[in-house]
Amino acid sequence: MAYELYYWDGIQGRGEFVRLALEEARADYIDVARSGHGMQKMLDYMRGRHGHDHMPFAPPFLRDGDIVVSHVANILHYLGPKLDLVPRDEKSRVFAHGLQLTITDFVAEAHDTHHPISTDDYYEDQKDEAKARSKTFLKHRVPKFMGYFNRIIEANPKRIGHAVGDSLSYVDLSLFQLAEGLAYAFPRAMGNFEKDYPQVAKVRDMVRQRPNIEAYLTSKRRLAFNESGIFRHYPELDQDPA
Amino acid sequence: MAYELYYWDGIQGRGEFVRLALEEARADYIDVARSGHGMQKMLDYMRGRHGHDHMPFAPPFLRDGDIVVSHVANILHYLGPKLDLVPRDEKSRVFAHGLQLTITDFVAEAHDTHHPISTDDYYEDQKDEAKARSKTFLKHRVPKFMGYFNRIIEANPKRIGHAVGDSLSYVDLSLFQLAEGLAYAFPRAMGNFEKDYPQVAKVRDMVRQRPNIEAYLTSKRRLAFNESGIFRHYPELDQDPA
Repeated sequence: MAYELYYWDGIQGRGEFVRLALEEARADYIDVARSGHGMQKMLDYMRGRHGHDHMPFAPPFLRDGDIVVSHVANILHYLGPKLDLVPRDEKSRVFAHGLQLTITDFVAEAHDTHHPISTDDYYEDQKDEAKARSKTFLKHRVPKFMGYFNRIIEANPKRIGHAVGDSLSYVDLSLFQLAEGLAYAFPRAMGNFEKDYPQVAKVRDMVRQRPNIEAYLTSKRRLAFNESGIFRHYPELDQDPA
Repeated sequence: MAYELYYWDGIQGRGEFVRLALEEARADYIDVARSGHGMQKMLDYMRGRHGHDHMPFAPPFLRDGDIVVSHVANILHYLGPKLDLVPRDEKSRVFAHGLQLTITDFVAEAHDTHHPISTDDYYEDQKDEAKARSKTFLKHRVPKFMGYFNRIIEANPKRIGHAVGDSLSYVDLSLFQLAEGLAYAFPRAMGNFEKDYPQVAKVRDMVRQRPNIEAYLTSKRRLAFNESGIFRHYPELDQDPA
């Protein structure tokens, strides 16, 4: 039976981290909210129409038969062994999940660069605060997180060029998405990305060239980055590289 | 062998969600950073002295023999079955983990009420923005998250009074900590908590009366809430109930 992915239509957003894993594995899946009556179906879950343990707080969530899995990191932890996108031993799975949760935290901070005060208000209503938050995000947070991921890849004793184990994992796919998102949102500030984070850049390039990913990125299924998603390009929030 | 918990000394913070689980189960554990040379030991991990998969981004992390587990939700997912704090079937574990990740998101938002612009600057330098963020947090985000948890407890077909399954889980313990933290940080705004979120309040009271938790809360091991942690009481950020 096909996996059912539930996520807002029109944006890459958090759903994209799951899509990349499903696409790389050529898994059979339905992007429910982008098909007929899909939004209604998604909201039915969130409103509790399918009961207690099928009532996620927010998309993305994944239905696999009788199981509903919510939150990106939980979904990837669940799918990892099924899609052969994580080593199967417990130690590696726990490690990969920790890395993915660090990615989760970074994604939330990237979102808050344009919504530092309230997700219930427009960007235009918190523009000054967004400038201040973007400045410290680019100065302190990007180097802290990206420097960490760069060190993790470099320290991998199994094979440099991967975050976990000796082959592609969902963590590599997510790092690709982070690098792409940062380049879209902050093209000026990311001018030295390859020099500053060479290992992350190599993982990004390696992922981009995977045949299934390449086919996905040029398909209609891949939505473009835009100003409704997590990574938004507002020139006034960008700045010269540090 | 005792579990080793690594977390900053002096605050409850994110480490507290793990401590509550270990204490409820009377597990054998060492709170490393609060013992001799503990901070040095903790930083050694973060600096990569123990290798690739023993290099967490940030505390809290847990060492169990050869495995290092980072991030609260990952730790509780790992400990849950070992401490008998989650039902053992996959479906329940996946569901509980999704709830815990929703708690994680709420904790990050609670933190950002006092640091909406930069974690690298003082609260005093972002006070006006903190007021704005706290206002929308209390108006929109607390009702959204707490309303959700209240519905989850209410909809539990196994036994109302627990978030997951028919007995105490780590999710219940974490909801207790959220309720306590909110009451500490925003005593005025939480004035109607019992009325607005009766199921969450019942879980909080149930947890507080567990003998092992009661013993812990009155012990020296339980640190007091303070203005270095996640939940901080700044009267100027509090307001009347909605």
